[in-house]
Amino acid sequence: MKVLVAGGAGFIGSHLIDSLLAEGNDVVCIDNFFIGTKKNIEHLMDNPKFKFYEQNLCDREKLEAVFEKENFEYVFHLAANSDIQASANDPAIEYENTYSTTFELLQAMRKYDVKKFFFASTSAVYGEKEGKNVSEDEPNLRPISYYGAAKLGSEALISAYSYMNDIKALIFRFPNVIGPRLTHGVIFDFVKRLKDDPSHLRILGDGTQCKPYIYVLDLVEAIMQFKDVKDTGITLYNLGVSTQSSVKTIADIVVDKMGLTGIPYEYTGGKGGWKGDVPKFQYDLSKIHAAGWKAKHESDESVALTVENVLKMN
Amino acid sequence: MKVLVAGGAGFIGSHLIDSLLAEGNDVVCIDNFFIGTKKNIEHLMDNPKFKFYEQNLCDREKLEAVFEKENFEYVFHLAANSDIQASANDPAIEYENTYSTTFELLQAMRKYDVKKFFFASTSAVYGEKEGKNVSEDEPNLRPISYYGAAKLGSEALISAYSYMNDIKALIFRFPNVIGPRLTHGVIFDFVKRLKDDPSHLRILGDGTQCKPYIYVLDLVEAIMQFKDVKDTGITLYNLGVSTQSSVKTIADIVVDKMGLTGIPYEYTGGKGGWKGDVPKFQYDLSKIHAAGWKAKHESDESVALTVENVLKMN
Repeated sequence: MKVLVAGGAGFIGSHLIDSLLAEGNDVVCIDNFFIGTKKNIEHLMDNPKFKFYEQNLCDREKLEAVFEKENFEYVFHLAANSDIQASANDPAIEYENTYSTTFELLQAMRKYDVKKFFFASTSAVYGEKEGKNVSEDEPNLRPISYYGAAKLGSEALISAYSYMNDIKALIFRFPNVIGPRLTHGVIFDFVKRLKDDPSHLRILGDGTQCKPYIYVLDLVEAIMQFKDVKDTGITLYNLGVSTQSSVKTIADIVVDKMGLTGIPYEYTGGKGGWKGDVPKFQYDLSKIHAAGWKAKHESDESVALTVENVLKMN
Repeated sequence: MKVLVAGGAGFIGSHLIDSLLAEGNDVVCIDNFFIGTKKNIEHLMDNPKFKFYEQNLCDREKLEAVFEKENFEYVFHLAANSDIQASANDPAIEYENTYSTTFELLQAMRKYDVKKFFFASTSAVYGEKEGKNVSEDEPNLRPISYYGAAKLGSEALISAYSYMNDIKALIFRFPNVIGPRLTHGVIFDFVKRLKDDPSHLRILGDGTQCKPYIYVLDLVEAIMQFKDVKDTGITLYNLGVSTQSSVKTIADIVVDKMGLTGIPYEYTGGKGGWKGDVPKFQYDLSKIHAAGWKAKHESDESVALTVENVLKMN
């Protein structure tokens, strides 16, 4: 089938394109390189089943031209700001890149009669739920980051567009996603700091922040497995790993993989890394496990693989 | 205190301004007359404690100029599209008038350090929950209208802005609101149809659609009673009446108040009035009742009062 991957030059999107092409699909990618990179898709440029448009999804005229021309069967929406720390200082980033991109894609699907949709949502929609195993049925969703707010708003849009236009929508709520092609986040920061100055490691917060980290290839496998949604309306899963990695553990893994020893850790203090960061989070994954999927790599293992990859790249 | 009522020339907003002025506050109103009318606020124009700006909330430069000049203590956000049937045909109405107005107001509050916020939300955020008494703790909110989606997205924004900027926010989820200054909806439609042609009455759906109707003055009283939020973060209540009125009952009341008899009803059929309309809904109001508020008028009584008012106006 012919599919659109919006945000396909990004970290997750580019891996998804690899899998969609491997399955034999025709893949069109739209990306504006806001966070995505040419490097992530340069290996695809000669593939006759791949086509790339460099444009902003919120440029309505250009977006409609692509829909008019390409006749998509499925839209995978992975375009968003993914740097929560950046938007904490400038919330308009989320309005433009995370919420409005969803609105524009759904409007185009409505106009051009596209009926299948995948959306990359996030555990950040739940807000602070410390001490709970958070299932999809969690009430009182209270995002504390502008990122989580824009994603929850996007889910609400999808709900209405799905109902009003008979769109089948698959929504995964991801935790932190790591692996090859990662561009930012705690692992990156630690490697960079230790390369710059291996005499000590500065750690945001008190180091006990503890969250699940999923390996990007496990996540893409889940999208591929569940993308042919049978049910009408919205199908929504928490997608993650059952274990968590603390920031202290991540530091230990980075230090070990870099062959360093005895690095003193300097904690900036406080329970979270920055305001808007949920310090502790864990999922109830029984719904997706019951549906026949489980991550191949647990959280610490994903961290270790990612550290190796980051070190190889630099 | 000096307050902003956004959407203050509208049906609910203008009643709220009357009450805020009666309490001695300085009230600034912004409205673009998209749905609001000059008539709703003309009685205030000579009041020295009232000030009006005719502008679109999404005109950022103008909005910031008002915030810069007026130094608000409290923002009441009642600006939105309220005609769900209209936006069913043009969802962009909700993106612009319901969601983006919330975003722009919160951005201005963030910039100008305003710490108190009231938001008019809606039962439409819940979606179809037939057979349930829906409490604030209802999980899996799935709006089926673009209106409900934009309101749920707005709530998500408020959650993040509240957390990130220490804003105290009061959110009421209203059912259908009726009373003086109403401009559209089923009561209006019935009166108009019977005035145009009293030989019969066309009724959308099968007439069993059944929802709570709250009288606008009861609702405004609740806003006044709860507006001085003590708790930090978000305080959210379902706000409504414990009873419901069926569309058939509303027709009976209209026919009766117009002094007509023996009008044949012609049902268009189907369970809902139009796609995106939640046909049956009832609230669990125990939270707001426990907090010391109860509507003075039940649903049928609110309908009767509103019919009388609509007939007087015409």
